[in-house]
Amino acid sequence: MTNTTLPLDHIYAPVRADLETVGREIKSVAEVDYPPTAELLRYTLSGGKGIRPALTLLCGTFYNYDLKLLIPMATAIELMHTATLVHDDAIDKSDVRRGRATLNKIWGEDRAVLLGDYLFARSGEFCTTTGNVRVIMLFIRTLSTISSGELIQSFDAFRLEQTREHYLERIARKTAALFATATESGAILSQAPEDSVRILREYGYNLGIAFQIIDDILDFTGTEEEMGKPIGSDLAQGTLTLPAMLILEQYPQDNPVRAIFTRRDMPEAEKQAKIKQAIAMVRGSALEKQCFHLAADYCDLACAELGRLPDKPGRRSLRELAEIVLKRNK
Amino acid sequence: MTNTTLPLDHIYAPVRADLETVGREIKSVAEVDYPPTAELLRYTLSGGKGIRPALTLLCGTFYNYDLKLLIPMATAIELMHTATLVHDDAIDKSDVRRGRATLNKIWGEDRAVLLGDYLFARSGEFCTTTGNVRVIMLFIRTLSTISSGELIQSFDAFRLEQTREHYLERIARKTAALFATATESGAILSQAPEDSVRILREYGYNLGIAFQIIDDILDFTGTEEEMGKPIGSDLAQGTLTLPAMLILEQYPQDNPVRAIFTRRDMPEAEKQAKIKQAIAMVRGSALEKQCFHLAADYCDLACAELGRLPDKPGRRSLRELAEIVLKRNK
Repeated sequence: MTNTTLPLDHIYAPVRADLETVGREIKSVAEVDYPPTAELLRYTLSGGKGIRPALTLLCGTFYNYDLKLLIPMATAIELMHTATLVHDDAIDKSDVRRGRATLNKIWGEDRAVLLGDYLFARSGEFCTTTGNVRVIMLFIRTLSTISSGELIQSFDAFRLEQTREHYLERIARKTAALFATATESGAILSQAPEDSVRILREYGYNLGIAFQIIDDILDFTGTEEEMGKPIGSDLAQGTLTLPAMLILEQYPQDNPVRAIFTRRDMPEAEKQAKIKQAIAMVRGSALEKQCFHLAADYCDLACAELGRLPDKPGRRSLRELAEIVLKRNK
Repeated sequence: MTNTTLPLDHIYAPVRADLETVGREIKSVAEVDYPPTAELLRYTLSGGKGIRPALTLLCGTFYNYDLKLLIPMATAIELMHTATLVHDDAIDKSDVRRGRATLNKIWGEDRAVLLGDYLFARSGEFCTTTGNVRVIMLFIRTLSTISSGELIQSFDAFRLEQTREHYLERIARKTAALFATATESGAILSQAPEDSVRILREYGYNLGIAFQIIDDILDFTGTEEEMGKPIGSDLAQGTLTLPAMLILEQYPQDNPVRAIFTRRDMPEAEKQAKIKQAIAMVRGSALEKQCFHLAADYCDLACAELGRLPDKPGRRSLRELAEIVLKRNK
């Protein structure tokens, strides 16, 4: 999801060595006895820029930075993220992710489902090694939130009557929930006072909303090369994102989104042409700016109370991360 | 999986009221705000005879029978079992389970995958409410074991070169692991001494092996009506079970199992004829008896040390359950 052009190294600096440890922990998950499973795991566990585990570590720097707890937690967060991607791709029958063939494309949807289950389990194991029942409950509830959100998205596919609130609720479940758990768990495991836990949770939540809005813009304005997956895939799958909602509102006549959503039997070539038309309506438009401004509002909200945290290098990283998330489309 | 003709009511007597509470807890999982998800959950969460949650409760009766811990644990066990069935059916593209259409048949494989994920998460939540980190780890590791076992089964499909040990390892992962967790968690949560925890874990493990061997026999000798699913499905899916292994060993010539496994492009009608031939080789044969004796050995092993547990009504139930598991094919 993240763009390789982001200067993340600088932002991750306060936790860089530990993030590398997390990377090794993640790779260690592929060390299983059965060679075919090991091969699937090695393939699946490479790639990813690690924004979520970085958040856990950064949010752990304000109080008692305990690597014995934070490393497994950050590992758990990234593994859960990977598991959800594996299942998403299997469900959407996506062919490409992070610029290469998906697991389901190579090994089939069935094995992708099983490997996703295995990764959910391993993520739960890493989380449980923290021994912190509050964090374990938070973590497991995140999976309820994400999967029930995906179910709602599945039932809402190709439905035109969706409100802005509906959209925000959906991306909250899909993305912000895990961001919030990443930051909150870092806070809890470093023994942050409750007010700081809340500030960091809200930071993660609002950053996650902004991150997903930008992701949804990039599905119109990005390039397949940058994004590592096809552009316009939300429209193709009938997922009504913010830019598509604005197209519906602002172009009552000859609306490509309405056409794609209502004429489900449209020939593929016509569908692709309609997607191109929708993309052209968003790229460089006032509509794109509107979406972008909403994302910027959420980034502001994310950072609103960071000043109340101890003045540690992690605080600056969190602020810069909120800026950089908005620059993903540049 | 269980047969309605089993006199389970009598066996469950020591925990009957509490098992009904578990049933209500399970049904409560369907009480979600979003009506389409609620409908899927209601459909999925009905049925099942509850042998696994009964094991948790029964194994909790020997020491400190604490319903505050045992009810959520038993609920978690049954929900995880249900989640694995939902994913299995989606992966196998099965149409029928427990005598009615599968979730994937009605709502599609994609939603079945998501609903399975949701049920895994909810099962984890119930388990986590016990607050017992040892039990939570045991529970989550069971999901690793089951899903990695299913992956192995997927890679082993249509492979003829499989040993008896291979088969036992596979069914240990597929079935015995969750049985063992059901019994061990009941023991741990009732503060059983470690030796009793081990005895009850081994009871569950060996009972689970026996249960699965009988299940594999019934895939040859049962009827679709009794089993609530088509007969011969293991062969059709290329899963080499014990009866199929014995056919391979004992009929070197004109072997239907070898034919199904090696001629993958066989026309469907011929495949069905071969399956019928294999079924005829097992039904009422010495080969069936051999499988049955192995299951009986595991039931004996299950009960071998029960005499060392306190003399409570639950002990008789566990013994009777081990007898009844063997009678499933009658």
